[in-house]
Amino acid sequence: MLNERKIPSTSLEAEEADSIRALATQLRVDSIRCSTSAGSGHPTSSLSAADLMAVLLTRHLRYDWEHPALQNNDHLIFSKGHASPLLYSMYRAVGVVDEDELLNTYRRFGARLQGHPTPLLPWVDVATGSLGQGLPVAVGISLAGRSLDKLPFHTWVLCGDSELAEGSIWEAIDKASYYNLGNLTAVVDVNRLGQDGPTELQWDMESYARRVEAFGAEALIIDGHDLGQIDDALRRAQSDPDQPTVILAKTIKGKGVPEIEDQNGWHGKALPADMAEKAIAALGGPSNVKVSTHPPEAGTPAITPNAQAAVTLPRWQVGEKVATRAAFGAAVSALAVRPEVVVLDGEVGNSTHAGDFKNVASERYFEIFIAEQQLVAATIGLSVRGYVAFASSFAAFLVSRPFDFIRMAGVSEVNIRLVGTHAGVEIGQDGPSQMALEDIAAMRAVHSSTVLYPADAPSTAQLVSAMADIPGISYLRATRGAYPVIYGPDEQFFAGGCKVHGASLDDQVALIGAGVTLHECLSAAEELAQAGITARVIDLYSVKPIDVDTLRRTCLETGGRIVVAEDHYAQGGIGSAVLEALAGANTPKLHIALLAVRELPGSGEPQDLLNAAGISARHIVAAARGLLMD
Amino acid sequence: MLNERKIPSTSLEAEEADSIRALATQLRVDSIRCSTSAGSGHPTSSLSAADLMAVLLTRHLRYDWEHPALQNNDHLIFSKGHASPLLYSMYRAVGVVDEDELLNTYRRFGARLQGHPTPLLPWVDVATGSLGQGLPVAVGISLAGRSLDKLPFHTWVLCGDSELAEGSIWEAIDKASYYNLGNLTAVVDVNRLGQDGPTELQWDMESYARRVEAFGAEALIIDGHDLGQIDDALRRAQSDPDQPTVILAKTIKGKGVPEIEDQNGWHGKALPADMAEKAIAALGGPSNVKVSTHPPEAGTPAITPNAQAAVTLPRWQVGEKVATRAAFGAAVSALAVRPEVVVLDGEVGNSTHAGDFKNVASERYFEIFIAEQQLVAATIGLSVRGYVAFASSFAAFLVSRPFDFIRMAGVSEVNIRLVGTHAGVEIGQDGPSQMALEDIAAMRAVHSSTVLYPADAPSTAQLVSAMADIPGISYLRATRGAYPVIYGPDEQFFAGGCKVHGASLDDQVALIGAGVTLHECLSAAEELAQAGITARVIDLYSVKPIDVDTLRRTCLETGGRIVVAEDHYAQGGIGSAVLEALAGANTPKLHIALLAVRELPGSGEPQDLLNAAGISARHIVAAARGLLMD
Repeated sequence: MLNERKIPSTSLEAEEADSIRALATQLRVDSIRCSTSAGSGHPTSSLSAADLMAVLLTRHLRYDWEHPALQNNDHLIFSKGHASPLLYSMYRAVGVVDEDELLNTYRRFGARLQGHPTPLLPWVDVATGSLGQGLPVAVGISLAGRSLDKLPFHTWVLCGDSELAEGSIWEAIDKASYYNLGNLTAVVDVNRLGQDGPTELQWDMESYARRVEAFGAEALIIDGHDLGQIDDALRRAQSDPDQPTVILAKTIKGKGVPEIEDQNGWHGKALPADMAEKAIAALGGPSNVKVSTHPPEAGTPAITPNAQAAVTLPRWQVGEKVATRAAFGAAVSALAVRPEVVVLDGEVGNSTHAGDFKNVASERYFEIFIAEQQLVAATIGLSVRGYVAFASSFAAFLVSRPFDFIRMAGVSEVNIRLVGTHAGVEIGQDGPSQMALEDIAAMRAVHSSTVLYPADAPSTAQLVSAMADIPGISYLRATRGAYPVIYGPDEQFFAGGCKVHGASLDDQVALIGAGVTLHECLSAAEELAQAGITARVIDLYSVKPIDVDTLRRTCLETGGRIVVAEDHYAQGGIGSAVLEALAGANTPKLHIALLAVRELPGSGEPQDLLNAAGISARHIVAAARGLLMD
Repeated sequence: MLNERKIPSTSLEAEEADSIRALATQLRVDSIRCSTSAGSGHPTSSLSAADLMAVLLTRHLRYDWEHPALQNNDHLIFSKGHASPLLYSMYRAVGVVDEDELLNTYRRFGARLQGHPTPLLPWVDVATGSLGQGLPVAVGISLAGRSLDKLPFHTWVLCGDSELAEGSIWEAIDKASYYNLGNLTAVVDVNRLGQDGPTELQWDMESYARRVEAFGAEALIIDGHDLGQIDDALRRAQSDPDQPTVILAKTIKGKGVPEIEDQNGWHGKALPADMAEKAIAALGGPSNVKVSTHPPEAGTPAITPNAQAAVTLPRWQVGEKVATRAAFGAAVSALAVRPEVVVLDGEVGNSTHAGDFKNVASERYFEIFIAEQQLVAATIGLSVRGYVAFASSFAAFLVSRPFDFIRMAGVSEVNIRLVGTHAGVEIGQDGPSQMALEDIAAMRAVHSSTVLYPADAPSTAQLVSAMADIPGISYLRATRGAYPVIYGPDEQFFAGGCKVHGASLDDQVALIGAGVTLHECLSAAEELAQAGITARVIDLYSVKPIDVDTLRRTCLETGGRIVVAEDHYAQGGIGSAVLEALAGANTPKLHIALLAVRELPGSGEPQDLLNAAGISARHIVAAARGLLMD
């Protein structure tokens, strides 16, 4: 079996080999030139993969460089994003980046040729640079091609060997195999050296192959500098429509510059000018090889998006008790009339109610099992292909386990939808490991994020529906328990809005809540009213963006007296969002009480836990009274 | 080879088998009783593993239950924390939890028998319940036994099959093999059913075994209900001192209650009272089997902690340019005189300067490669064994990739130290994928966290030294570039402190910075002084806890005029921490300007990026002037 992994070296036509060799040399020269010119970057990590990419570009990649938005184009993702000199040199070779841009803007302020690739470049699908992410995202892209639009594109991913230590890589290979992604090929540049010394497995190609095969993909071991072997492997990688391939290419870091080949200490270092000059001369000097890649294959997508499809949201009676997670399930199922809507689950679809979608559109429901990094990565990949993808799990896991993927989705500026259920101490008996209590702080701090936390079913349904068209990363936090429906079916909810209950100019205090604490605020307002204290309640269902105007006006109208109650730790959550909104030159005078979870909670009944955390109606009442006494 | 994985069933002595069987039955009965009594919990996930744990408890675990702090005790971790009914039933069987506590407090408010295990129980090392974490933490525990204290304990981990979809499990098996952890055994309860249907691999035991073997561990496949096979596998797992073992036990979910055996739809559901009664009767009713486990093996630790060892911190000249990451490396190396100090690296030790420690104490320096989840998990495991462990990587990866592990470390209330370098836009050319800009928000929201962000070398060194004795999760954020030393060697820095520069009662405005922006604030103050505006500067090196008193006093003394500048996104960071500190009943009047990163940055020179983000000296000056004009 081991022998089958090894590809025999076949001979390319001599002329073809010569032109590929010339391209590879140019990619090396350009990688050295741009990084030395920038004074930083990763030339040695580019040199090791130059032959691999030269063959891919010349003979296998199917791409119309003038029309990067074409749905039939192959995808090329540098999971080892630090090899950006190589990627950008490839762009020069195909004619979409010119020599001046490559040499004089790489890594410079304001340039699109950044240190690590981002989608500022129209040929880049997602930002990479946090290792172990490109391949998981590619799984989502390939899943779209295989299972949704059924277009004949292929997804090519260049991985580093160091990143194979990331568990996320194995989640990706596992899911690629599970979903029979024969349209996905990972090329691993096994150059033996990481940033800080040898990698864990160095050139133990057989160990890598055993791991890849055990996770269900085909493993091919090649000499990554033998053009014939590379060509054969890339061809063979496309031959089985049902199995992904991982090409394990044994390479030499710094290949082409003998004095630094396979030498430790050269990771992430540009060659000094004199060394670069000598190396470039030895390689034959700069050249101007131009490559014409194959055009994409023809094909018509099996799915046509329809953002205008009439979505009929579910309706509930005011007073009826409904969990917002159930409203999410119902609403996302209603969105299934839009053919581009897709739902991904982390093996908790029966709890999150994401599973409801399976009943109406099973072909657009993907079970990712308990692998939240891959869950979010696949969502990002589907978004790259234009799908409106919702991922959901318990909020505690959905935000924190793949937080680096969410962060990078912000750098990519892709559009994804995350729904985290079972938030806060409200979940009760399962205890603190299952309680998201830091998710709002974390999600607010992500670039391009929207953070929503509705209190009842109709507001949840409307916001879920709105999320389909919200750009960036939208996150909806849902509650485990069932609470009364507050709003009628015709009330409007949108990112940046809030709902004010019972406002009058006589209000002495404002009570701000969201999700479960909104219900506590409403109870508190009733109790205060019985004591002759008029309180308005603000349903702050949109935590980011936040309704600054309403908050400022409220401050002025209540003498700055505000109580914020949140089922979240005291740092960075809803209270902080309110303070950030009010702060500025001439911040209104504030008498504010911030009620939040301040101690580690345990198990218990939800109401006992809300009480113990000091965020239930009676604490809100006491806090309001306290502010009025000052 | 495949045959070797299978353990032949050998016969236990009949009497021994009978008593184990009686114990297993009791564990099943008690698992049903406590969960039905609580009205929630995971009995079926407990029933599948009852035979495995009965054999372990009776014949292999070496543990003094009266002295859980004994260093020679084995460790038992339920990575599948939801099987808490089984774990707590084991505690009853060994006599440390009585029937009343088990039946009447499980999952109740205020009880220590929580829905998922936490270290409120003295026999629980770490909180579990977020899947895929127990085994990675066990790697750290076993690493301590194998490489540091060299005590003869064994670490036993009960895993679920669903959690094998988590990449973190494969990071763990990989590192267990790499570090030859023959003292670690994972027992996987392959009961085929997850929460929401069949698992990915169901009972494909050979596929599991191939994965385990490819990652370097020994795989043993057994019938998880055959006591003889279990016993043999547990014995064999202890036979090789250099290779970890993964026992793959084919089991039946709900085993022992025929009507729900291997049935979907029974995950996480307590049996209704009538079903429970019938099931318990069929099992023979409640019993009172008591188990005496083997005592721990004798042995003396090879390392004796010495918290009193005299640490000589490095010294620098005021004005000298030093990166705080370099100061971290120097300080943590100075801490090496304390034999309990350990450093873990994520293959960037040459950049973070953690690698400096290797030069002085290589036997206490562990390379975890690019696997940040395992990096933090190993740190937690070492902390469980009493080591003072520092983990470091780039802040962007160190906080976000293992954020769920950090969150759970908060639930565990363990003591770990995290040092994240290369924070913020200041890193420059590498671009946004490498810039931590949400780490302060995320880390502040973690239970038990301390967040430090020093601006120069001496303050960094002192705070690194302090971290060795700070309880909970301490996080230090370090800067890439070199900046002037500000403080003399005798200044004191501590969690909860800050440094005020140039305070007088005439100050018109306060400028608050930390890390790189402190230098910008100092420049701004000079420029303002030249224009006749007196500004005080606050070095807010301790972001959590924060010096509330100094901030409030400052507010009163500057008429509430405050500028906060931070190299972090605008949500939940330093500005929010300041607002949270000031907010309350009678919040001081504020004229505040919050300067933070508000757009996605790109590559560039650090100073250009600070300018573009609007957080450099000139923006601070402008903001201060703006506040004074209002």
